[in-house]
Amino acid sequence: MKLLTRRFVLFLLLLVGISGHDVQTANAQTDPLPSWNDGPPKKAIIDFVTRVTTQGGPDFVPSAERVATFDNDGTLWPEQPVYFQMAFALDEIQRMAPQRPEWRQKEPFKSLLQGDMKGFARFGKSGVLDIVAASHTGMTTEVFRQNVLDWTSKARHPRFKRLYTELVYQPMLELLSYLRANGFKTFIVSGGGVEFMRPWVETVYGIPPEQVVGSSGVVQFGFDQNGKPELKKIAKIEFVDDGPGKPVGINRFIGRRPIFAFGNSDGDLQMLQWTAGGQGARFLGIVRHTDPDREYAYDRESKIGKLDKALDEAAAKGWTVVNMKMDWKTIFPPEK
Amino acid sequence: MKLLTRRFVLFLLLLVGISGHDVQTANAQTDPLPSWNDGPPKKAIIDFVTRVTTQGGPDFVPSAERVATFDNDGTLWPEQPVYFQMAFALDEIQRMAPQRPEWRQKEPFKSLLQGDMKGFARFGKSGVLDIVAASHTGMTTEVFRQNVLDWTSKARHPRFKRLYTELVYQPMLELLSYLRANGFKTFIVSGGGVEFMRPWVETVYGIPPEQVVGSSGVVQFGFDQNGKPELKKIAKIEFVDDGPGKPVGINRFIGRRPIFAFGNSDGDLQMLQWTAGGQGARFLGIVRHTDPDREYAYDRESKIGKLDKALDEAAAKGWTVVNMKMDWKTIFPPEK
Repeated sequence: MKLLTRRFVLFLLLLVGISGHDVQTANAQTDPLPSWNDGPPKKAIIDFVTRVTTQGGPDFVPSAERVATFDNDGTLWPEQPVYFQMAFALDEIQRMAPQRPEWRQKEPFKSLLQGDMKGFARFGKSGVLDIVAASHTGMTTEVFRQNVLDWTSKARHPRFKRLYTELVYQPMLELLSYLRANGFKTFIVSGGGVEFMRPWVETVYGIPPEQVVGSSGVVQFGFDQNGKPELKKIAKIEFVDDGPGKPVGINRFIGRRPIFAFGNSDGDLQMLQWTAGGQGARFLGIVRHTDPDREYAYDRESKIGKLDKALDEAAAKGWTVVNMKMDWKTIFPPEK
Repeated sequence: MKLLTRRFVLFLLLLVGISGHDVQTANAQTDPLPSWNDGPPKKAIIDFVTRVTTQGGPDFVPSAERVATFDNDGTLWPEQPVYFQMAFALDEIQRMAPQRPEWRQKEPFKSLLQGDMKGFARFGKSGVLDIVAASHTGMTTEVFRQNVLDWTSKARHPRFKRLYTELVYQPMLELLSYLRANGFKTFIVSGGGVEFMRPWVETVYGIPPEQVVGSSGVVQFGFDQNGKPELKKIAKIEFVDDGPGKPVGINRFIGRRPIFAFGNSDGDLQMLQWTAGGQGARFLGIVRHTDPDREYAYDRESKIGKLDKALDEAAAKGWTVVNMKMDWKTIFPPEK
């Protein structure tokens, strides 16, 4: 009896030519981007999505080819005062220190554990690499995943005092949902570590782990002492998904050229160029950090998230530059 | 008026609690695997899928975690008398030869172009690598993609005289569809080249390019003489997705452990072990080539697709071994 009812509904569905996608379109008559002020970026996004989803229109793109790629740090969540992954690494060193007494005598750990950040800074890039290696390698992928989840469940941002995973840009969450409701597949393409992002991106962004492209270290397959297979993280960089690495990573992991890309720094320039270089309609977006009160303000002179060449190219080529202060009604989701 | 009608149907849908997935389930009351003979493998597959999709059951797995990985050569299509990608490489050398007059004096091309396969065989693995490099690198990713599509549109298998992309196993096509209809995401995890598979897998297997994991060469981002961004394929191997490389590739590209894996050779053993090693219900399958009349028969002694250690481990651990001759009603889809 229930089956009959279902068949009857299925028949009705066919009759009116409805599909899941039509249902979404009907629902989307309310504002899909409520945290965006009316202005050129919001208009450009909605115009683009409308054009590529209008069947029979000159810019129509089949759903399978609607690939949208987003940088993470500075585009979907902040990157100040330090990359959040660096905050994780520093916290991990503190957490692991009791089990690593030798660190008390060994730089750069010694300075760090004494709270001497100036002393730590002396070691420059090699100090950072030591910290990242110590916090990110030498364990299995599953232990690392759990370490990340433990940290995201309790670590708080020094300025905003909220969990890092709550500090994601509300307007970008809406944009991700809006694109997916219109048949896009959304991907992260980040210079950050892929194994650092994958444990939480599905809950936070609605992006499954298999749609995350990022930097990675070497991983080795083997067996533990009980004969259980394991993947161990080795202190050797395998792939840096930044700058020219981004189109390479897109090709390697996705195998399709995006039609929509969003970044915020010069590290995203080649991803934007590669996306722009394809045939057909394209959307290229840049988040510009212009809001010192609600978030941060930085661009051409910043050490983190430097936005210089990409800003010039955006102006020259008519890419969409989001002015955070002007274009976003809210920055972060409301506190729970 | 049309919108009203749609809303009415939507209301009916809610009323009977139907969803897209329910519709598929209702349809699947006919045999989902018609090309499989009744027998232990078919029963094991259906039992497993039923268990992991039974909400509230002890083995239920949420849809997002239903990751299924398939080897390609010998698992989804044949690999005899040579890997199909090798047939492509050999054909490409013939096609490119008029533009490369120097090959007439240069081994291993010289022997190959003279049809002297014994002469070519003298160069062993290094000869094969030369042929693969010449046919797979030195061009952009887009030119290579077109070369692959040109070849798959006309090259025919020496024995079956059909297009290679028509020589896919009908029972495995049904299995892929059955899994997807039950909320699985299907991936290829192949030792073959990722850029050789991606152009045609979506049409042939219903697997999108971003769900293909494979071996790859280095790719470089740059600009052509007109300032257009391009990705160029370089003659340097980057990643070999075979043996222990398979779990590494799964971790790198998918970032989730599969719950279902199918292979056919010792090159798939570590993928099967890694899949088996997770918690919860697991399905491990091996295609055994036992049908010299309709396909091929080979296992422990074969140079291509050697199945020896994995066969022993399958027996010891109760993995499902498909006997092609016994378990499959048909091998290939009917000719169009």
